[in-house]
Amino acid sequence: MVSFECDYIAGAHPEIIKRLAETNMESLPGYGMDHYTESAKDKIRKSCACPEAQVELLVGGTQTNAVVISTMLKDWEGVIAADSGHVSVHESGAIEYSGHKVLALPGKEGKLEASAVRAYIQKFYSDMTHDHMVFPGMVYISHPTEPGTLYSKKELEELSLVCREYGIPLYLDGARLGYGLMSRESDLTIEDIARLTDVFYIGGTKVGALCGEAVVFTRGNRPEHFLTSVKRRGALLAKGRLLGIQFDTLFTDDLYFRISRHAIDMAEKLKEIIREKGWEFYMDSPTNQQLMIMDEEQMETLGRKVLFDRWGIYDEKHTIVRLATSWSTSEEDLEVLREI
Amino acid sequence: MVSFECDYIAGAHPEIIKRLAETNMESLPGYGMDHYTESAKDKIRKSCACPEAQVELLVGGTQTNAVVISTMLKDWEGVIAADSGHVSVHESGAIEYSGHKVLALPGKEGKLEASAVRAYIQKFYSDMTHDHMVFPGMVYISHPTEPGTLYSKKELEELSLVCREYGIPLYLDGARLGYGLMSRESDLTIEDIARLTDVFYIGGTKVGALCGEAVVFTRGNRPEHFLTSVKRRGALLAKGRLLGIQFDTLFTDDLYFRISRHAIDMAEKLKEIIREKGWEFYMDSPTNQQLMIMDEEQMETLGRKVLFDRWGIYDEKHTIVRLATSWSTSEEDLEVLREI
Amino acid sequence: MVSFECDYIAGAHPEIIKRLAETNMESLPGYGMDHYTESAKDKIRKSCACPEAQVELLVGGTQTNAVVISTMLKDWEGVIAADSGHVSVHESGAIEYSGHKVLALPGKEGKLEASAVRAYIQKFYSDMTHDHMVFPGMVYISHPTEPGTLYSKKELEELSLVCREYGIPLYLDGARLGYGLMSRESDLTIEDIARLTDVFYIGGTKVGALCGEAVVFTRGNRPEHFLTSVKRRGALLAKGRLLGIQFDTLFTDDLYFRISRHAIDMAEKLKEIIREKGWEFYMDSPTNQQLMIMDEEQMETLGRKVLFDRWGIYDEKHTIVRLATSWSTSEEDLEVLREI
Amino acid sequence: MVSFECDYIAGAHPEIIKRLAETNMESLPGYGMDHYTESAKDKIRKSCACPEAQVELLVGGTQTNAVVISTMLKDWEGVIAADSGHVSVHESGAIEYSGHKVLALPGKEGKLEASAVRAYIQKFYSDMTHDHMVFPGMVYISHPTEPGTLYSKKELEELSLVCREYGIPLYLDGARLGYGLMSRESDLTIEDIARLTDVFYIGGTKVGALCGEAVVFTRGNRPEHFLTSVKRRGALLAKGRLLGIQFDTLFTDDLYFRISRHAIDMAEKLKEIIREKGWEFYMDSPTNQQLMIMDEEQMETLGRKVLFDRWGIYDEKHTIVRLATSWSTSEEDLEVLREI
Repeated sequence: MVSFECDYIAGAHPEIIKRLAETNMESLPGYGMDHYTESAKDKIRKSCACPEAQVELLVGGTQTNAVVISTMLKDWEGVIAADSGHVSVHESGAIEYSGHKVLALPGKEGKLEASAVRAYIQKFYSDMTHDHMVFPGMVYISHPTEPGTLYSKKELEELSLVCREYGIPLYLDGARLGYGLMSRESDLTIEDIARLTDVFYIGGTKVGALCGEAVVFTRGNRPEHFLTSVKRRGALLAKGRLLGIQFDTLFTDDLYFRISRHAIDMAEKLKEIIREKGWEFYMDSPTNQQLMIMDEEQMETLGRKVLFDRWGIYDEKHTIVRLATSWSTSEEDLEVLREI
Repeated sequence: MVSFECDYIAGAHPEIIKRLAETNMESLPGYGMDHYTESAKDKIRKSCACPEAQVELLVGGTQTNAVVISTMLKDWEGVIAADSGHVSVHESGAIEYSGHKVLALPGKEGKLEASAVRAYIQKFYSDMTHDHMVFPGMVYISHPTEPGTLYSKKELEELSLVCREYGIPLYLDGARLGYGLMSRESDLTIEDIARLTDVFYIGGTKVGALCGEAVVFTRGNRPEHFLTSVKRRGALLAKGRLLGIQFDTLFTDDLYFRISRHAIDMAEKLKEIIREKGWEFYMDSPTNQQLMIMDEEQMETLGRKVLFDRWGIYDEKHTIVRLATSWSTSEEDLEVLREI
Repeated sequence: MVSFECDYIAGAHPEIIKRLAETNMESLPGYGMDHYTESAKDKIRKSCACPEAQVELLVGGTQTNAVVISTMLKDWEGVIAADSGHVSVHESGAIEYSGHKVLALPGKEGKLEASAVRAYIQKFYSDMTHDHMVFPGMVYISHPTEPGTLYSKKELEELSLVCREYGIPLYLDGARLGYGLMSRESDLTIEDIARLTDVFYIGGTKVGALCGEAVVFTRGNRPEHFLTSVKRRGALLAKGRLLGIQFDTLFTDDLYFRISRHAIDMAEKLKEIIREKGWEFYMDSPTNQQLMIMDEEQMETLGRKVLFDRWGIYDEKHTIVRLATSWSTSEEDLEVLREI
Repeated sequence: MVSFECDYIAGAHPEIIKRLAETNMESLPGYGMDHYTESAKDKIRKSCACPEAQVELLVGGTQTNAVVISTMLKDWEGVIAADSGHVSVHESGAIEYSGHKVLALPGKEGKLEASAVRAYIQKFYSDMTHDHMVFPGMVYISHPTEPGTLYSKKELEELSLVCREYGIPLYLDGARLGYGLMSRESDLTIEDIARLTDVFYIGGTKVGALCGEAVVFTRGNRPEHFLTSVKRRGALLAKGRLLGIQFDTLFTDDLYFRISRHAIDMAEKLKEIIREKGWEFYMDSPTNQQLMIMDEEQMETLGRKVLFDRWGIYDEKHTIVRLATSWSTSEEDLEVLREI
């Protein structure tokens, strides 16, 4: 049985395991004060060409979204997101748990359009009763989006412009950032993202780490007393080394980007196989997740050899099936699929 | 200048002021333990033909929604509401402040359809990832709705059925309940509402009181230690008599229903005037709020004699204008309008 | 039966009822935008000799504490209070409901000492792990305190100094402010309080109003978008006139201070009666609440003619009994007591 | 330089690193649905002799306390803890962030006495105003306590009895549980703890793991929809295997207990060295943390060879110094200390 269920089925990239083992008996201070964490932050700043960035390491994606959004929003504000956004749908209400509303706008293939955001904010401020409403205080996007689509540089520039126009931060959830940046269709670099957003995170969990997400505050805008706010949300890891060593490894010799490219190469081959098999794509995705429309019979056949994800319901007889590649996908895995 | 701006422009019904004055120097216990509050609760139970109901008096509408919803939802649940629902839009995120998500579904003229609710819940439970989502834990409707429409008995029965099918409470926000019940198009009585919902509130603020809303838990389902939960939300009034005396008065000799009927009679005359003037209705409303589409010139003319509410934006050149009647609207007020 | 149970047993001062009746049919805008509210705010600013103060009217005391504290604290901060403080003990955890900790310090007869506050803050900042603790972000005091004691001008100046030294606001809960200011032992004026605190509230509920507390932000420090934050906490009153008219009346011709002085005069006579009867004082109080130590027999005797409050447990055989006077206490009430 | 700063200076026990490496490329489902997590839970249940226990793995201690306490408390409840308890002092207000109050009682050498808990609860219920207070809804203890003391079986039985008497859960924070259980003065086994508490957690972070705490609900009392509540608090780890493999390893062949015993053996030798050196103990601790009173000169000498923790301020000239052993402390480390 081979798994294409998601991009977090394997442990960590072997280089990470090796580094964890090598450094294991070193005495290091806790709470991210260790030199590996410092080094990881430096490397990330360099990678982003953003020397003034403040980098913070957290454990997981939902946690990161909740911490970043709730510490950056003001009391009377909510966060704009696409209606398919992770924070809108798949975080069990973690943003609301922090007391803030997700202002969901209809997305287009998972993406938020700058024009829709501008229209929403304009309408908000022209509404005579807006003092009785939730103020738009941040824009959240995921890149790649949940269904695997990508913002173009132009689209991101437009979103950035709207946000600056209204003085609210643009936050990019990069749970799968590597797979987005290495996509053959991407015209965005990590420097672009650092330049165009106010805060974003570089996903580790889905891109080679056991756990960990690196938040980048791109303009010295990390919330005051951030460590205390992280602690109070139960999100401060005692052995910060676990995160520091992983990101230090991922940002040494471009490992993060190299393994992301591998996942994309595998995804491109996966797309070829899907085409060969005549399976129907649900939507065109340039990243590591491929969505197909399948009936029960097709899923039964597929399921004999392969673990996959029932991503959503298409219609009464069809399901949206997701196959995901990752840094750990091998040619052999694809071979199993090809031979179904 | 005559005001049709909203239904809370005047103080209280004169009978209430009289009763407040008459009882003013009586020594009464605080926090709703006084005999006027007891009497008000009894009268409301009788009016609802619901002897087992638990009635609680709170100060305002948003407060009531936040208290009721947050004490009835479980940790992992959110509340389903129409996207135009008061809790969705006009409470500055009060539900989210309590930690819970409003699950907004597209409404139809402000109403939530039972079929849409059922479809949403079915889809939720058939979603493989629903443990990562917010569970639907309550259905919120307003009656009359925000734009002034009404649920029919059949529609309410259907909603009630869905809720019971899934074991979640149906909550009816009756900020303007009197105006709904007394509408000429209503086929619902307050007994029906008590029978078909799990909890609802009888709005006082907009129907003759200075302040106050009476929450009716229709089946002994008042949350445990409710007083403490109310206190902890800053919603416990020290001089509960202020609410008790008002509701006792409103539910003596059907005052609540009589003054509501008056507002409806005034609204019907208002509709005639609108028709006579050739103003365009935005939508047909059988209750005390009438919505019209007006351009700037029309609004300028109107505004010379009358205060009105700019309810929403219709298009670049037109505004949705609201004229509301209430228990305090007089024939003279209408005359001013007629003579514009 | 005569009641000395608490200071909110009667309705409102008759002048307030009269004004509510007189203004009842006026059309006024909602949410505190009416001219009575404006006038009340002006009069309060004048009374405080604080022209730059921002005044906001809220409904009740716990609500006011929760709104003020939670909108002024930063995410990582808590509020210092005496361990007997209302926010520490008797608000069902309303501050914690807003996500913030009450940092309780031992009080002295209900009062917080400047030296204790300074020591606490110094210790906090000298603690190497203070980033893992709750930062002291505000000092809360009540005046009069819960057991009825008063801060002297010197004590308040010292507290003010500590707060300014550490850059945190000093907040004074004046639920019974009038009774404190009019006490024969008080050397503080309302101008002093406006000068020495950063925010305080003038209690209406216990001093002549049906409901209502007036918050005074003394240095242009009202939190941004305060109305929206109030709304989102369910604390925005639709008919703001109810609060505006009451405070406008209370601050016309010094009514607030005159009725407070009356309550103090009654309390002084009450103290004489207590001395005559040989009842034991629990502590010396210069304000409207008198605490005595009584056994069951004494309470039985007292209870035949008078309603009183069992304020606390003294020891296995004795109870702390509270008798409170207020603006509504009459000579006749005292006579009943004297004749027991 | 040798570190005795705390018990989380090293990575994980080498056996854990080995197992992480060996299992690294296995495809496993996420969110704790993997077979290692299942196996870990089974082994923990067996170790506790508590077959009906529900075991859940979380990432860190503060997170675990916040999740357990906030999902088990009812809306109107708070948690009783010693005033020195971790939840009272060192979690940046994480419990309050969840909306609940920590009801701090004076502890005795870090321990909560059953008599104090009973007295507090009795007083609470005899207080006429307790509906305006926070209900005691849980008792929190840490074992070992923050300063390193231990509950005896008798003390734990008494606490258990009080909790059952009042129907509230007893929760034991076992961040350093292994070191407590293996202490030479302990008369408690893990079975005793499972029998006497309602919920407790077995600390991994400080006892051999990179991260991870295992919560044990001892009587089928895991809160409903726990996974969703965990997710909504940002505490659900995608690669649950990281926790599963670690606890599976720790509970294989008693590794958890063996390495804990080693730490205690090292601590006993440490105590001998302290005695030899004539350093003054701050308090007698039977576990892995030793507290001493030192002046600046002593600390300077110590600090030349050894990293230590400034645990607290003793007086103006003296500091409370903590030296901690752990599973990773070696004889060589002690030798460095001996030779100072």
